[in-house]
Amino acid sequence: MDSCLKEILKMVVPSKEEEEKAWRIINEFKSKLEDYLPEVLVGGSFGKGTWLKGASDVDLFIRFSKDDEKISNKVEGALKKLGIDYIRIEGSRDYFKVHYKNFEFELVPIVKISKPEKAKNITDLSPFHVDYVRRKIIEKPYLANEIRLTKAFMRTIGVYGAESYISGFSGYACEVLTIHYNSFLDLLKNSSNWKPKIIIDPENFYKNKQEVVNKLNIHRLRSPIIVIDPVYPARNVTASVSTKSFAQFIFYTRRFLEDINKYNIEKYFIVEQKTEEYFIRKYKRLGTCLIVFEVIGKGNNLDVKNTKILKFLKFIKKQLTALGFIVLDYDIIFQKDLNCTGKIYLYVYPNCLPEYELRSGPPVWTRDHSEKFYRKWANFEIKVNSDGRLFAIIPRKVKTLQEAINFIFNNLKNSIEDKVEKISYRIISR
Amino acid sequence: MDSCLKEILKMVVPSKEEEEKAWRIINEFKSKLEDYLPEVLVGGSFGKGTWLKGASDVDLFIRFSKDDEKISNKVEGALKKLGIDYIRIEGSRDYFKVHYKNFEFELVPIVKISKPEKAKNITDLSPFHVDYVRRKIIEKPYLANEIRLTKAFMRTIGVYGAESYISGFSGYACEVLTIHYNSFLDLLKNSSNWKPKIIIDPENFYKNKQEVVNKLNIHRLRSPIIVIDPVYPARNVTASVSTKSFAQFIFYTRRFLEDINKYNIEKYFIVEQKTEEYFIRKYKRLGTCLIVFEVIGKGNNLDVKNTKILKFLKFIKKQLTALGFIVLDYDIIFQKDLNCTGKIYLYVYPNCLPEYELRSGPPVWTRDHSEKFYRKWANFEIKVNSDGRLFAIIPRKVKTLQEAINFIFNNLKNSIEDKVEKISYRIISR
Repeated sequence: MDSCLKEILKMVVPSKEEEEKAWRIINEFKSKLEDYLPEVLVGGSFGKGTWLKGASDVDLFIRFSKDDEKISNKVEGALKKLGIDYIRIEGSRDYFKVHYKNFEFELVPIVKISKPEKAKNITDLSPFHVDYVRRKIIEKPYLANEIRLTKAFMRTIGVYGAESYISGFSGYACEVLTIHYNSFLDLLKNSSNWKPKIIIDPENFYKNKQEVVNKLNIHRLRSPIIVIDPVYPARNVTASVSTKSFAQFIFYTRRFLEDINKYNIEKYFIVEQKTEEYFIRKYKRLGTCLIVFEVIGKGNNLDVKNTKILKFLKFIKKQLTALGFIVLDYDIIFQKDLNCTGKIYLYVYPNCLPEYELRSGPPVWTRDHSEKFYRKWANFEIKVNSDGRLFAIIPRKVKTLQEAINFIFNNLKNSIEDKVEKISYRIISR
Repeated sequence: MDSCLKEILKMVVPSKEEEEKAWRIINEFKSKLEDYLPEVLVGGSFGKGTWLKGASDVDLFIRFSKDDEKISNKVEGALKKLGIDYIRIEGSRDYFKVHYKNFEFELVPIVKISKPEKAKNITDLSPFHVDYVRRKIIEKPYLANEIRLTKAFMRTIGVYGAESYISGFSGYACEVLTIHYNSFLDLLKNSSNWKPKIIIDPENFYKNKQEVVNKLNIHRLRSPIIVIDPVYPARNVTASVSTKSFAQFIFYTRRFLEDINKYNIEKYFIVEQKTEEYFIRKYKRLGTCLIVFEVIGKGNNLDVKNTKILKFLKFIKKQLTALGFIVLDYDIIFQKDLNCTGKIYLYVYPNCLPEYELRSGPPVWTRDHSEKFYRKWANFEIKVNSDGRLFAIIPRKVKTLQEAINFIFNNLKNSIEDKVEKISYRIISR
C-alpha cells in the first residue's frame, strides 16, 4: 500500500479500543435479543468487518426458519418483552430502529433460505453477502482496510449509499468493487476510465458482456454501471447508482490520482461540514440573491424524507425558472436524522424582474385557440412570431423573488405539502 | 360595397387631379425616353391602374425585341444622352432609378417574349401581369378600388411587399387575390380561415391541389400560401410570403372583420409613424432597459440594406441572449431610402448580470474533453450534472449591457461590418 494511504488508514480504521467497545455493546444487545428470538446475525459493515472508524449503525438480521407474514410482529413482540424503545419502520418488510448505548441498531427480520435464488425479499440475501465478503477477507485480510478506504472516499465525494436521495454505491457495492480490483488504488485506476454501461462480473458467471445484456432483467440494466452480484448472478449490485453519482465518482477518482502524487489526499477522507457562513460568502461572491429553505421532508424514514427534499428542490427550481428567474446554482444539506432540518440554498437572480413578460400563444390558424388567446390579452401588445404563433407582452404578476415564493406557496400548496412536513425560508439579497 | 369601406376609398383612391397630374408627368418622361429607346411600357400599379393615393413610384419597362446582355447598357446610354441623373442598380438584370418631378421611376430593361414560358428573367413576365390585371379590371371596373383596399390594408399591417425584409404579398399578389375573391371583403372573409399550405389556382390550371403539389418545383411550394400565377401555371405568385406575414395577415383580417361591424376600420388604412417618444414610453412601461440602434444596412439597394438590418437584429438578439440577457421585445423601423437610417429598439433586461455564470462542459467519460474543461476552470466550483456532464460556476466577463455591446462590437467586428455600413447606439436605463 502507498505510504500516503497508510497515513489515511488512521482516519478510517477503528482503533483496537473502539473495536472492542463496539463488539462488547453489539454482543450485549444481541444476547438480549437472543433470549426471545430464534437467530440473530450481525450484518452490514460490522458483520463483514469493514466498518468505518466512528460508525455506530449496526444491522442485525433476525433470521426465521420459515416465511411468515408475521415475522416483523415477532421482532416487535421481543422488543416489547425486553422493554426496549424502538421505532417500527414500514417497508417491504417492516423493520425496527433501536438506540442502544450510543449505537443505532437496525433490526431486520429475514427468512432462512438455502440459496440466493430462493430469496423472497432482498434482505434475505444479506447473509450471503456477509459470507462472501468475510470469505474474501479471510483469504486476503488486507482487503478489509482497502474496502474502508473505498467507502470513506465514496462518502466524502457524496456517492456513498444506495438510498434514493443519494443514488450512490451501497456498502456492498464498495466491497465487491474493491475485492474485484484487489485494492482501493487499483479500483480508482480502473474506474478513472469507466464509461457508461460498463459491466463488471467478478465471478465470471457470464461468458461475455452480451450475455449479461441478454439475460439480465431490463430494469437491472438501467444504471450506468452493472456489477453482477457475486452471490446471485441475476442481480446488479450497482442498480442504485445514478448517472450523476457514476460521473462524480469517475471525476473525483481522477482528481485523487493526481493528488496522490502531490501527497495531498487527506481531503478525500474528511467529510466537510459547510457552515452557514460558507453559503453566505458564496452568494455574495456569485452576485446573486440567496434563498435558504429549512425543511423537513415528508415521510417516515430518512431516505424518504431526503428524497422528498430533493423533489422539493427540483420543484422549486422549476417553478422559479417558469416565473422568469434564473437559478445559477444550489447547495443541499440533507437531514441527518428524522427531526433535524435539511437545508437548500438557491443562488437566484434577478431579484426583480421587469413589469412585463412575454406570453407565447397558439398559431394563428388554430382559430379557436388563437382567438381565445387574443381576447384574453387584447388590451396588450400582441404580435406574430416567425412560426406564425401569437405572443403577447403582458403585465407580470410576479416580479420580485419574495412575490415568487409567495405565489408558489399560495398557488401550489398541495405540491409542497406533498413533499415537506415543515418548511421555512429566508430571502437574502443586497 | 360596404358603406363603411366607401368612406375609406377617399383615403386610398387618388383624386381626379392627382391622377391627371401623375399621368402628365409619366407620359412626359416616357416620351423623352421613347426618343432613344425602342418601346417603353408603364408597368407596376400605374400600368394596371391600381396605384394607391400618394404613390409616386412608377415602373417603366424598356422592352427590347431580342435578348442581349447589353440591354441594360442601352438604357444607360439613353439616360446619358438625355442628360438625366440616375442610379444603376445591380440585379439579375441591372436596372435604373430616376427621380423626375417628384416621381421615382424604375427603368427595367426587359425582352419581348411571345408567351410567359419563354421568360428568361422574371421581369420579362411583367407585361403579361399588367395585361391580365387590366383585362380583369376592364371586365369589372370596381375591382381597381377593391385592389387598392387590399394593398392599403396589407401595407398598414406590414405585409405589403415581396422584398425579402418584408417577405409579404407583392402588388401583383394583392391583385390576383382580390380578383380571385372578387372583392376586398370577400378576400378577407376567406383568408380569415386560411391555414398553411393553402393552394389557390384562380385560372384552374390544375385538376386539384395534389396536382399542384406534384407539378410545381419544390422551391415554389415552400411558402405557406401557394397562388398559381394566372398567366404562368408554373409560378407561385406568393412564393415571397413568409409564415410570419401569412399569419399576420390572417390575424389582422379577423381583427378587421370584427371592427367593420363597429365602424372602426380607418386605422387599417393609416400607416402609423411611431415617434421616438413612443418607444421611450414603451420601455418605461415594460420596465426593461432600451438599446436604440441607428443603422444603415450594407448593400446597394433598399431591399438588401433593410434585409441586412434584419440580419443585424437577429444577430444582436442572439449575441445578447448568449451573454445572459433577455430580449423581451423589439421594434424595427426600416430605412425609407438609401441614406436615412433604420432603427432598432431592443427591450432588454437585466441591466446588470451577476458576477458569476454557469458554463456547461462535456460528460466526465469523454476523458480528454472533460479533463481539459476541468483544467481550464479548476480554480472555480466544478460540479457534475444529472446527465454526467461537468459544469463550472465561473466569473462572468460581461456583466452590464454596456459591456455586452462593447464585447460584441469588439469581438465580432466582422459579423457586424458584414451587415451594416454605419451604426450607432444608445443604451437607456433607469
